[in-house]
Amino acid sequence: MGERDDEVRARACLTAVCGPGNTWLTDLLAEHGAARVWAALASGEGPPDTDSVDTEADPDARPAMERTWNRWRTRACRVDPDGLLGDSAEMGVRFVAPGDPEWPGRLEGLDPGPYGLWVRGGGDLRNLCLRSVALVGARAATSYGEHVASEMAYTLGEHSVVTVSGGAYGIDGAAHRAAHAIGATVVVLACGLDVDYPRGHAGLFADVARRGALVSERPLGATPRAPDFLVRNRLIAALTPGTVVVEAGRRSGALNTATHAASMDRAVMTVPGPVTSALSVGCHTLLRRHGAVCVTSAEDVLEHLGDDAGPESPGPVRVEADLSPETERVLSAVPRTGAGTASIALECGGDLEGTMRALGVLAAAGLVERCTAGWRTPRT
Amino acid sequence: MGERDDEVRARACLTAVCGPGNTWLTDLLAEHGAARVWAALASGEGPPDTDSVDTEADPDARPAMERTWNRWRTRACRVDPDGLLGDSAEMGVRFVAPGDPEWPGRLEGLDPGPYGLWVRGGGDLRNLCLRSVALVGARAATSYGEHVASEMAYTLGEHSVVTVSGGAYGIDGAAHRAAHAIGATVVVLACGLDVDYPRGHAGLFADVARRGALVSERPLGATPRAPDFLVRNRLIAALTPGTVVVEAGRRSGALNTATHAASMDRAVMTVPGPVTSALSVGCHTLLRRHGAVCVTSAEDVLEHLGDDAGPESPGPVRVEADLSPETERVLSAVPRTGAGTASIALECGGDLEGTMRALGVLAAAGLVERCTAGWRTPRT
Repeated sequence: MGERDDEVRARACLTAVCGPGNTWLTDLLAEHGAARVWAALASGEGPPDTDSVDTEADPDARPAMERTWNRWRTRACRVDPDGLLGDSAEMGVRFVAPGDPEWPGRLEGLDPGPYGLWVRGGGDLRNLCLRSVALVGARAATSYGEHVASEMAYTLGEHSVVTVSGGAYGIDGAAHRAAHAIGATVVVLACGLDVDYPRGHAGLFADVARRGALVSERPLGATPRAPDFLVRNRLIAALTPGTVVVEAGRRSGALNTATHAASMDRAVMTVPGPVTSALSVGCHTLLRRHGAVCVTSAEDVLEHLGDDAGPESPGPVRVEADLSPETERVLSAVPRTGAGTASIALECGGDLEGTMRALGVLAAAGLVERCTAGWRTPRT
Repeated sequence: MGERDDEVRARACLTAVCGPGNTWLTDLLAEHGAARVWAALASGEGPPDTDSVDTEADPDARPAMERTWNRWRTRACRVDPDGLLGDSAEMGVRFVAPGDPEWPGRLEGLDPGPYGLWVRGGGDLRNLCLRSVALVGARAATSYGEHVASEMAYTLGEHSVVTVSGGAYGIDGAAHRAAHAIGATVVVLACGLDVDYPRGHAGLFADVARRGALVSERPLGATPRAPDFLVRNRLIAALTPGTVVVEAGRRSGALNTATHAASMDRAVMTVPGPVTSALSVGCHTLLRRHGAVCVTSAEDVLEHLGDDAGPESPGPVRVEADLSPETERVLSAVPRTGAGTASIALECGGDLEGTMRALGVLAAAGLVERCTAGWRTPRT
């Protein structure tokens, strides 16, 4: 295994050990690399030093860091790296790390960014997010809110703009259902991609996986706790050039997503509603106090985003000339009729993980695509 | 009669001859005074010269001015100044000219301003407008719009903010009814104050006149034509520190009022509504393209206007020391139990017009107030 593989594998393991959005870990990764940090954790060593924490100025910092590190070390002992990646591949879940071709470019602006992303679905995450908008809003939405979310997501889809949202009932669900009816959609979850939360959306998630993508910073099996949703919200805002709050009560989580979007200089848009509706209070506050742009339709959203919405028709980026010999080998092993990742690995004589990563590169380049069997070369 | 009386009387006559908002006449009045302009019209002379029209640069200007002047002259022949003011006084309608104590200070910013205002009602126009907001919107309003207008006008009234609006069905009517239920309201009409337009609001106008005011630039008997409403809208915007568009379709006249408000640097506010409602399209356009402030309640309006809303409790401004001997005489002739203008004039030995003007001064100073009989000295 190459150095890059070690790094990616270590990042995957870290998602199983450290909660997402930890700034100290983000600093450690930047300074020492994931492989070194993971090796220290897995072998029971102490934390590598970091310049970013001034332990002299803050005498409490050292003990707090040690407590955190010990907690991570305890969990790290229980992680089986091969099992983690193998089980995920088995469930059709791949791991995408910074620097991978499928890594969405917009995440560069996010700090702390994800250590890596677990992705499930036939769509290439980077391609899906190129031309996308976040549509977010209340779980306890009104029929008005769900109607507007559906209309907006569908019309955005007609203009090949992908909807990005959470997986909740209400606005999220309405937006995804409409977006899926016309094209692809991206669901960002706060739990493992095998945990259908909420349960009632299991069918929707399965539908989305066909041509869109489900994304999470957390590994298989991780169940969502309340703070996870707030950490997840920053990812929804970061993946897109703009966030539309469709319907939001006074303290809706959707406002948290809007705040993240604003802090990253992404467009913050909102749909007005009746001033008599408690579910529009958050939207009107965004208009009144936070300079959000009033949008009443998908056309308004497209007009406001302008060129930021992304290229009209991104299409596959053909990079055959730049393929590594290993990736070339994997490509030649992908049959036109489709095959699973394991059988492709067997065919080209590579390991499962390397093959998965090569397939990610090829998918991002539009040279392979997902199918029921696993992967195939595109018809056109 | 003094010079000032001649001037005011001439302005009253001019409202019966020239349509409101004529820039040429406004220039003539500024250069020559109303008495001189009226004398020229009434005696069949040609128009006085004005520097503001460059007849050399624009060869069409001279004939156009002559046509207009001739039209005015024809009408002027039919005007009986005594009858005009006498009939108006008979109907409880007074004439307020620039420089009068009742003249609203905010009108200084309006160009072309009114030649004068016909006012009916127990309220002092200047006092009423000190702390006021324009609430405007569609005639064909929805029940949502009427509900919001009512709530807003009533709550503004609770904070002693007077509602200013037109006299139409829909938002105007709903706002006035609610404002009247808690305090005073100002109706700005595009027709004579004896013309109840629309007919169904005759009762409302009679109610408003009890403690509020009805205002028009046009004399008794003038019927409204379509362009008059647009000219009237500038007056609604000018009388107040801010305009709230409650509900407006894509081409609503309320948007015209908002444009006037913006051009005078007055606050432009609007109430959002369902994006599915055609009657909120104009409001959302104001939010989206014209930087209007989103307001969802009277509290939002008060917060946005801040000190511009006017003094919390203006109260009567006592200026007894500054009263002219004539005004003092009129004051001493006003009984505590109330009397009509004509009998007060008789009592103090003045003419009707001078007495009316003195009563205006006294009302503005809070030294007399309207009552069913006409005028009385206040109880407190």
